[in-house]
Amino acid sequence: MIFATLGSNKLVTTLDAIMTEIFTGVKPDKILILSEEARRIDLSEVMKAFGFNVETENLELGIGINAWRDKIKDIEIDVADITPGRKYMAIAVLNYSKAKEVRYAYLKEESKGYNIFGYVPLQEITVYDVRNGVSIPYDPPKTVENLPRKVEIDVESLEALINLYSLLGNVDYDEDFEEICRLRSGDIRFKEEEKIMQYVKDRYFFLADVNVYVFLGERLGKITWSKEFGPRLLASRSTYNELLRHTTSTQKGEDPKFHLAMSSYRRIHKQVPVSESSRGSDVVLIEEAKALKKELPDPLALITADGGVGTSGTSQGVKVILLHDKVKGQRNVGELLFCESFYKNNIEISVNGEPFARILKSKFPNERKVTVETLKAEYNYAYVLSKLEEIMKNNGSEN
Amino acid sequence: MIFATLGSNKLVTTLDAIMTEIFTGVKPDKILILSEEARRIDLSEVMKAFGFNVETENLELGIGINAWRDKIKDIEIDVADITPGRKYMAIAVLNYSKAKEVRYAYLKEESKGYNIFGYVPLQEITVYDVRNGVSIPYDPPKTVENLPRKVEIDVESLEALINLYSLLGNVDYDEDFEEICRLRSGDIRFKEEEKIMQYVKDRYFFLADVNVYVFLGERLGKITWSKEFGPRLLASRSTYNELLRHTTSTQKGEDPKFHLAMSSYRRIHKQVPVSESSRGSDVVLIEEAKALKKELPDPLALITADGGVGTSGTSQGVKVILLHDKVKGQRNVGELLFCESFYKNNIEISVNGEPFARILKSKFPNERKVTVETLKAEYNYAYVLSKLEEIMKNNGSEN
Repeated sequence: MIFATLGSNKLVTTLDAIMTEIFTGVKPDKILILSEEARRIDLSEVMKAFGFNVETENLELGIGINAWRDKIKDIEIDVADITPGRKYMAIAVLNYSKAKEVRYAYLKEESKGYNIFGYVPLQEITVYDVRNGVSIPYDPPKTVENLPRKVEIDVESLEALINLYSLLGNVDYDEDFEEICRLRSGDIRFKEEEKIMQYVKDRYFFLADVNVYVFLGERLGKITWSKEFGPRLLASRSTYNELLRHTTSTQKGEDPKFHLAMSSYRRIHKQVPVSESSRGSDVVLIEEAKALKKELPDPLALITADGGVGTSGTSQGVKVILLHDKVKGQRNVGELLFCESFYKNNIEISVNGEPFARILKSKFPNERKVTVETLKAEYNYAYVLSKLEEIMKNNGSEN
Repeated sequence: MIFATLGSNKLVTTLDAIMTEIFTGVKPDKILILSEEARRIDLSEVMKAFGFNVETENLELGIGINAWRDKIKDIEIDVADITPGRKYMAIAVLNYSKAKEVRYAYLKEESKGYNIFGYVPLQEITVYDVRNGVSIPYDPPKTVENLPRKVEIDVESLEALINLYSLLGNVDYDEDFEEICRLRSGDIRFKEEEKIMQYVKDRYFFLADVNVYVFLGERLGKITWSKEFGPRLLASRSTYNELLRHTTSTQKGEDPKFHLAMSSYRRIHKQVPVSESSRGSDVVLIEEAKALKKELPDPLALITADGGVGTSGTSQGVKVILLHDKVKGQRNVGELLFCESFYKNNIEISVNGEPFARILKSKFPNERKVTVETLKAEYNYAYVLSKLEEIMKNNGSEN
């Protein structure tokens, strides 16, 4: 059976299309990737994990509508997926190829599609046979059983793993989470986050206290991001200095929260401020806010979860957003389990009551990786995800 | 004549499709924008500029392949452009609508398409009749003559204006440019910029001297940007302090180069470092580099155009990239004329020797706007661009 899809400069969309079709039950003997300019993508290792002996052929069809129309009609195809690639390529395949079936995977929020396979739950993606409009159900494939049991995967892949398991049944894990993990993953939110997002629209800049990096983690970068103006959270030197002070100990058994916070600080700001001095405290943070206000064209607000900082800042003329009221939010499971893996020795994940995998204890928050040990060998999706990560990594940054 | 196109969350692609078709000679009585969820976009003012009395109708066709297939067949359309919008919408229009002609504007570098109409030269875009693969030539329309003569437009629109003029003939302007404008616009480049881009791939961070912000302007942000890791140029406090010192004078008649440099600094870094002290000098910059190296996980290089800073930095163990050899590059005309507008009282632009417009003297580099006075009333494309900017601005940040 010959399966074809389209290649573009966004490799991830091509991989996602192939994997989505594999999850509808497609069992290819050959995978064709049709592109303007072919890249050498090899999926044989991923396919072997499902027991398929597949050859990947990268075909270069050239550039432009006419080139595609001419070449596509002679290519043998059984099922084509036209979800990735450019519009004119899709039209060429649909209207001029001999493909017996042409499919399109519909995802309402298109922008979510640029993530590793599974990151968007397949329940949110509908695969259509384009010619007759009929939707095609999923049929999650089994893996062969002799695959490596322990793999390291990204936080995003962990989210994907849980999503893929959810196709097989009810996914469960120990719900006894640290509060900071629930906060960092959005499972609990501060009501005042809405206020922050409103301030972003009003062109505010922000400084954030250490506790805000502890509680909100990566989410802090997202809620202070403006579509129009870019990042609005400034890298506070006082906060950085405090984080440095809290992360200098090399003793075991300490609460990893400041390491998690520092990792978020580094990821959000990408750059660190120079510490001329090692000053960092509530007083210094407020001084910093006042100094910054002088030099910024837009207003500034200080975010803190510390009532004392709030009161003192406000008295000194600094606008303060105090994180205070906790409300139920929507969890990002990947972030939740990642954070929790710094606290627990292992976290078991079961599907319909049967153990499928366990997440081992993590040590380096900066790396954003977890080690997953698969317990249910015939569903070793963790290994598959690690291989997909590898393909993306080896094919450069343009994924 | 009813012209239809597709709406998506990227408004700019819809506007570009409409304008591109207007530039092939389409003269609509009605413009239909077909979307999943309709937005209220009104093009009547832009169309009036070309003397067309056009009603814009925003139609909401709902979500998904089947909804579109059902609804599209009853909609009266003469010419449809399926360049914007999602793939399945395009397929629905192509295969199920009664449109007499379906067109697609092909641009090789798709990512360049998310800019204001004209920013990508139409010479690089081919409009096809999808059904027969025939390409359609351009036929730039005239504007009515009673439009406002003086308008303010963005730097990107200025680039677009020159590109649109180039469809009418040979575009000319006084080539006697300031060297810093030639550098900032890429007309001249430093050979060492390649080295910077190589260092970006090698995961370097960078600090840059004042002269680098002066000479490279916005380009500095681009060449130090990593697709994989994001921005790699750190906001130097020493450089900021020096820039502050150079921009405190309120006297007239000074060289605007430091204002241009500060504007670039603010745009590139979006945030400014707090100036605890006002220290900023060659010595302080090198000290800052050394202090930063301590706290960064990746290597750091200092970029400067000052040989003295280079020698001293190198001796102290700081990796230095010295901007030195100038080579011919490719100019961004918008940036070039924008920069030059701070030096000249007006810059005349002619097409085939006939004066078409003049750019008036600019004052505020931060605003990235130029005032254009149209001299050739029947080609008042500057006004059209200002109206397109307005539509994008009024329809929020999701353009």
